Amino acid sequence: MVKRLPLEEDVLAIIRPRQEERDHICSLAERLLASIAESGKAQGMVVGSIARHTWVHGDRDLDVFMLFDPSLSREELELQGLALARSIAGAYTEKFHEKYAEHPYINANIDDVDVDLVPCYNVDSASRIQSAVDRTPFHTRYITDRINGLIDDVLLLKRFTKAGGIYGSDQMTEGFSGYLCELLVLHYGGFTPLLEAAATWRPHIIIDIEHHAAKAFDEPLVVVDPVDPRRNVAAAVSLDRMAGFVELARGYLESPSDKFFMHPLERCILRQELTTVIEQRKTFVYAILFATPPYIPEVVVPQLKRSLLSVRELLERNGFVVHHVHYDMQPERCMFLLELLVGELPSIRSHAGPPLWNRVNADKFREKHLAERTTGPYIENGRYEMELPREYITAKSLLSSQELLKAASLGKHVRQSLESGWTLLEGADCWQEEFAPFIAGFFDRCSPLVRILRKR
Amino acid sequence: MVKRLPLEEDVLAIIRPRQEERDHICSLAERLLASIAESGKAQGMVVGSIARHTWVHGDRDLDVFMLFDPSLSREELELQGLALARSIAGAYTEKFHEKYAEHPYINANIDDVDVDLVPCYNVDSASRIQSAVDRTPFHTRYITDRINGLIDDVLLLKRFTKAGGIYGSDQMTEGFSGYLCELLVLHYGGFTPLLEAAATWRPHIIIDIEHHAAKAFDEPLVVVDPVDPRRNVAAAVSLDRMAGFVELARGYLESPSDKFFMHPLERCILRQELTTVIEQRKTFVYAILFATPPYIPEVVVPQLKRSLLSVRELLERNGFVVHHVHYDMQPERCMFLLELLVGELPSIRSHAGPPLWNRVNADKFREKHLAERTTGPYIENGRYEMELPREYITAKSLLSSQELLKAASLGKHVRQSLESGWTLLEGADCWQEEFAPFIAGFFDRCSPLVRILRKR
Repeated sequence: MVKRLPLEEDVLAIIRPRQEERDHICSLAERLLASIAESGKAQGMVVGSIARHTWVHGDRDLDVFMLFDPSLSREELELQGLALARSIAGAYTEKFHEKYAEHPYINANIDDVDVDLVPCYNVDSASRIQSAVDRTPFHTRYITDRINGLIDDVLLLKRFTKAGGIYGSDQMTEGFSGYLCELLVLHYGGFTPLLEAAATWRPHIIIDIEHHAAKAFDEPLVVVDPVDPRRNVAAAVSLDRMAGFVELARGYLESPSDKFFMHPLERCILRQELTTVIEQRKTFVYAILFATPPYIPEVVVPQLKRSLLSVRELLERNGFVVHHVHYDMQPERCMFLLELLVGELPSIRSHAGPPLWNRVNADKFREKHLAERTTGPYIENGRYEMELPREYITAKSLLSSQELLKAASLGKHVRQSLESGWTLLEGADCWQEEFAPFIAGFFDRCSPLVRILRKR
Repeated sequence: MVKRLPLEEDVLAIIRPRQEERDHICSLAERLLASIAESGKAQGMVVGSIARHTWVHGDRDLDVFMLFDPSLSREELELQGLALARSIAGAYTEKFHEKYAEHPYINANIDDVDVDLVPCYNVDSASRIQSAVDRTPFHTRYITDRINGLIDDVLLLKRFTKAGGIYGSDQMTEGFSGYLCELLVLHYGGFTPLLEAAATWRPHIIIDIEHHAAKAFDEPLVVVDPVDPRRNVAAAVSLDRMAGFVELARGYLESPSDKFFMHPLERCILRQELTTVIEQRKTFVYAILFATPPYIPEVVVPQLKRSLLSVRELLERNGFVVHHVHYDMQPERCMFLLELLVGELPSIRSHAGPPLWNRVNADKFREKHLAERTTGPYIENGRYEMELPREYITAKSLLSSQELLKAASLGKHVRQSLESGWTLLEGADCWQEEFAPFIAGFFDRCSPLVRILRKR
């Protein structure tokens, strides 16, 4: 047994599920499994952290899978699966509705527990899975067979990554999933050995517990799925989130503290504070506000990232020096927040043409711009170059123009939303209540925990 | 015989030396050669454009070489050569003095002609030359043996390149030497065939009249010296001067005009005009003024170029966006003229550190900047990054600081001059009388001829 620090024991005492929680959820799970068995149509199975005993006090997510015969067609699976899920959920509550991941499933609130009833195929080998959902039972079996004795370590790691702001494999977090936490603890044999190893991680490290990787992975952190040799469980982890974990590990090992397990208070910023911040920084701050596209975050967030990158490039192409950009997505509206070092430029710009050796194009270039040029053409590095009037003298005029729409064309739904119009805010006017935590983080650049850690 | 345009005949009538000029210079040359022969110490030879009959009306440069026995040591050559040159010059005038190229020689003003008396070795094959000076007699023999019938073409080309501002192989002009003009006319068989060929030139064209190139050349224009297979006669021609010649050739062939042979009036700029120009452009204009280092242009000009490039990089490294820079050298003072798009920046700057994976350096970086940082460290692309206060908020403060001295360290003599101090001027104060033509050209970016040409 690994020796634990007293502070870790104190943390565990708080985060371990209470006996009454266990009883409550387990009895509900048993009743649901019994209902599935009674139906005779599928085999029930509890998956997720509750099945694996790696859930944390307060979690109220119960995932029940309904394993159907793999000879069913996809349509039959969806039809029969949803019908069964509805009938079971309906027996407990009226508060249920259909959700959609790779398949449709039913989400219900039963006895204050958030229950997912998910149909999938009951395949006998992970190599036969037909969709990502079918893989989940194999994950659960793999972990439950091996996790004994390491459950507290998983609880610590989950809390540690949550407090550090890197728990979650969604597109906004780009961090660590629960299954990844379990595998890391398994591989290194505990929370502390994992942190000790992580302190020396380098990008493109490969962790392959079953030694069966069946392809090359190029993500910064690679943890080959023990049940699928072609899948990287850590594919969602970005380079910076991996670096963040490395930093937290080093910080905690150097000076362990319960701060590393405390949910940080969400920092906020008041409008007046923003005014002061911008006055001090003397930078040029703009916000682009638009309606949140009505699609799931997995679809919208990558488009936000791509579009924001394009907007940044648009500014730089037009000569405006960008300091920092970030995006936020709230239920109603999205925000691109942009901080520039230069907000206004002189009215001239250099415009390079083709090399003089390409006579046809060089002549065309000269003719084309003769009327509008302010100086030139002159020869620079063997090319014609002219000074032309700058189209956008201010970043504000550029960000208000249709150029923004063209730049954002990389994200279909984001572009559609922008086509209905956007609001451009400037300076302290960028402050909007729902975005206040985001704006605070934009200028802090890291979570309060990490700020404490880095001042050590 | 090539058919000439009437305008070319008109130009030739102006630029051909007059009979009384010929008589005057030739009789002086004969007297000098006789004096050398009388001395019994060396053999006299007229070289340069007068020997080759490729001089232009008004030229008054007579180059007389004194060919000594190659068995003399270098010291003896210099001693005996200078003694003979002094005695010959002294017989005509008191206005002579010593100059220095690769060897010392005597420059004298005799009968209103600028005479160079240059000692060199009388070697019997170009492969035996001991210094660049020894090569000149071979150039003269090569051209005089072949130039018959093409002399007018050489005169036209010299005048054409002079009018276009690209005649001269010095470091400031980076253009065409007289010998290069002669070889080009020889190779293409005349002025017009040369222009027709040049209109389609591309960089790295190789002209090798004797088909004997003995090395690879990497200059934009390569004309292998017929008397030295390892020498590029066009080595001084920069890419942009070559492109300028190509453009002049195309322009002249398209619409021939005597404008292409007229010395352009030197453009000037008045202080009040400069004020208006800067107000219209809304750019940030600075001039760095310092004493001209007391060395020959061949030494100083390359240093000016290198130092100016460093100053440009210094500005860009500090976040100031540079639009255009150029230098000028006048007898007393040099000027770096700089036009920026951004003259002032916010007080913050991003400062990237080592990757987090390099723990020792990452920790050092964090510790080092903790006290001065305004934000961070945060993680960006796997590296620590901080916001630090910007050292130089204005380009003016940067250009006034000792950073300028460090940046200019690539040129020894320029640095020495700057160490004695420099003057930083801003806006219309950059106007200084001796630099007025340079400042005019800085904003025009080309000669008046080329401006006319490009508006065609």
